[in-house]
Amino acid sequence: MLKINEKRLLENLESLAKTGRTPDGGVSRPALSEADAAGRAWFKRKVKEAGLTFHADEAGNLSAILPAATPNARTLLVGSHLDSVPNGGRFDGALGVLSALEAVQSIKEAGLNLPVHLEAISFTDEEGTVMGMMGSRALTGQFTQADLEQTRQPPAQLTAGLERLNLNRANIHLARRNPESLAGYVELHIEQGTRLEEAALQIGVVTSIVGIRSFWLTFTGQAAHAGTTPMDKRADALWGAANFVLQAKEMVMAQFSPGVVNCGQLVVQPGSFNIVPAKVRLALEFRHGSEAGLDPMEVALLNLATEVAAKHRLTLSTEPMGTCTAAPMNPRLIRAVEQAATQLNLRYTRLLSLAGHDAQTLSPFTPTVLFFVPSVAGISHNPHEYTHDKDVINGANVILHTLLILAQGHR
Amino acid sequence: MLKINEKRLLENLESLAKTGRTPDGGVSRPALSEADAAGRAWFKRKVKEAGLTFHADEAGNLSAILPAATPNARTLLVGSHLDSVPNGGRFDGALGVLSALEAVQSIKEAGLNLPVHLEAISFTDEEGTVMGMMGSRALTGQFTQADLEQTRQPPAQLTAGLERLNLNRANIHLARRNPESLAGYVELHIEQGTRLEEAALQIGVVTSIVGIRSFWLTFTGQAAHAGTTPMDKRADALWGAANFVLQAKEMVMAQFSPGVVNCGQLVVQPGSFNIVPAKVRLALEFRHGSEAGLDPMEVALLNLATEVAAKHRLTLSTEPMGTCTAAPMNPRLIRAVEQAATQLNLRYTRLLSLAGHDAQTLSPFTPTVLFFVPSVAGISHNPHEYTHDKDVINGANVILHTLLILAQGHR
Repeated sequence: MLKINEKRLLENLESLAKTGRTPDGGVSRPALSEADAAGRAWFKRKVKEAGLTFHADEAGNLSAILPAATPNARTLLVGSHLDSVPNGGRFDGALGVLSALEAVQSIKEAGLNLPVHLEAISFTDEEGTVMGMMGSRALTGQFTQADLEQTRQPPAQLTAGLERLNLNRANIHLARRNPESLAGYVELHIEQGTRLEEAALQIGVVTSIVGIRSFWLTFTGQAAHAGTTPMDKRADALWGAANFVLQAKEMVMAQFSPGVVNCGQLVVQPGSFNIVPAKVRLALEFRHGSEAGLDPMEVALLNLATEVAAKHRLTLSTEPMGTCTAAPMNPRLIRAVEQAATQLNLRYTRLLSLAGHDAQTLSPFTPTVLFFVPSVAGISHNPHEYTHDKDVINGANVILHTLLILAQGHR
Repeated sequence: MLKINEKRLLENLESLAKTGRTPDGGVSRPALSEADAAGRAWFKRKVKEAGLTFHADEAGNLSAILPAATPNARTLLVGSHLDSVPNGGRFDGALGVLSALEAVQSIKEAGLNLPVHLEAISFTDEEGTVMGMMGSRALTGQFTQADLEQTRQPPAQLTAGLERLNLNRANIHLARRNPESLAGYVELHIEQGTRLEEAALQIGVVTSIVGIRSFWLTFTGQAAHAGTTPMDKRADALWGAANFVLQAKEMVMAQFSPGVVNCGQLVVQPGSFNIVPAKVRLALEFRHGSEAGLDPMEVALLNLATEVAAKHRLTLSTEPMGTCTAAPMNPRLIRAVEQAATQLNLRYTRLLSLAGHDAQTLSPFTPTVLFFVPSVAGISHNPHEYTHDKDVINGANVILHTLLILAQGHR
């Protein structure tokens, strides 16, 4: 049975981690930084050493291509991202790119002649140093010139970063591919959670990347003297907000699991020891695997807020904030990953991804699948992020066999 | 039956309200201000017109004295304060002082010869422009020179204010009286609540002025990704704080009424939509009529916080903030007020005072009683503060007869 080269993969991971290395063993390789440029140069060398075709598109996405025998074959993409958050870990993103490179290189070395082009790809700026998922957005035609006007970086810094990567801001949108040219997208990522570790499983096949919706809820009551106002006469905005926080938690756990809810900020006015709270602004965010799951969740949560407000003699106003559309993974590709795991005798499960990934951007564009290997204690975006060697190797072997299974379908 | 001069009392209230009058019919007469000085000059004129002895002590407390026949008689104090909060109402404090003056003047005009000196007194700065209850603290020996170093006003403003009232900062503590010289203290005040109005009662006899204790409670959990961290694995500090807010409310209403609790401020860290709250600081304040009531209330509330923290996998730290000792009123003086109300055919009840008054400062020093007349809709510290004429008159007549009843006890 064909396997990847374990030693080479582990050495590559170790070697790449030297670009942007932090004193405590993590990496700082934010998109467009000097460290990102160094990581990209490293990747280009490795692609050439592997005898694969190197390609860089207008959005700075970097690829290692193993062409099919027939030039008009479709392209099966496999990858993740080389950039990191500041002071992040060595595995988030890099694991997916290097495992993809290793799998494609192993297929080339095995002399297999597949009916699809294989393209191991690293997407630009998944972490959002400039804008989240810039590279995958460009490739899927979701990037517009106007996006560059609203980036998170000051203009001078952005310009310097684009120059560092030899990117022309006027041409980024040209990275768009024709979806007819693609056979799908496969992504391996660390779990960044503890579900696999706790269940002693080796592979988690994502069925959907959650959608996210968020609101500011404002509960308004009446400021009052905290002594002379009888408790049963108060319209205490904090009582309403506290009641909502707890009931939203209970309701989501009981009715919308594995969807999740978070109330991450709460601001009280006027905010004195001796004044009954007049107004509370509450940050509400909830996630679910599908838009069809998010819709009733939104209705239920906003209804709950209305009921709680009325019960406490408060008025409620709601202000929608950001949303992120849920991204279902492709059932055929999910089955391919599961078949690969079965061939490799690996214990797997299906699960939701509760964080965003490039696969989310690819999902509406081409058949897409995302799968996880365990991350120790779920630690991520942190120098102590770690995935055991055996899990690294398992992930790359699952990529390898998923590619072979999917390629079969194109014969 | 002896009654006060209704017309004169109402005219005096109207006349005093012109000093510091605000456009919407309230008054701004903060202690040591020009308006306060004008109010004091007005009071001095009225005392002299009444044929009473005017006295100003080293703390700026102003008195109208009706001497007893025997010079070594004790002094029965009756009064309140002429200062107001900025943009306050016409009744808070002023009602008590002018009703006291009216009652003493009526007794003088009736030619009664009492075995105690009667002294209608206005205490300096009850509202705390410089320091809360400065005048009553000085009279009872609770004022020290060091207090002046920690006032709420900038030094230059304080100096100008003291000069305006001809006060010498080095002499304020000399206002201290010998408690052996006193026969007690009677204070009438507006309720600043709605208990009398709602029960259609005319007089509320205070049994105790509440004590106040306050704490910062800090619940500490673990910041976490609001997507990837399973809800049953979170240590969400806001869940604990919200649970405490609601359970504290239920517990105090069920077990410690008429004691009250308020959580007036809540601060979340780190405070983002997509991060599970790691830490919450919560401002807790609770009030009860006696120290014997406050002690178990404090134990119960802090135990509750500990339990709630453990339930939500949080740690708890507590930091005591200000306290204000509960002040029981004197049973003999309470009965005297009730007897006076009965003689006047007024409907009365006993109740707690949930806000502070000069009577609180006097209570450990001399037998003290505080009683209320209704304030419309409980509105106070507000230009729309109002008490009906009939209630003003009732209050002054109750003072008059309370003084007569108490004086009897000294024959």
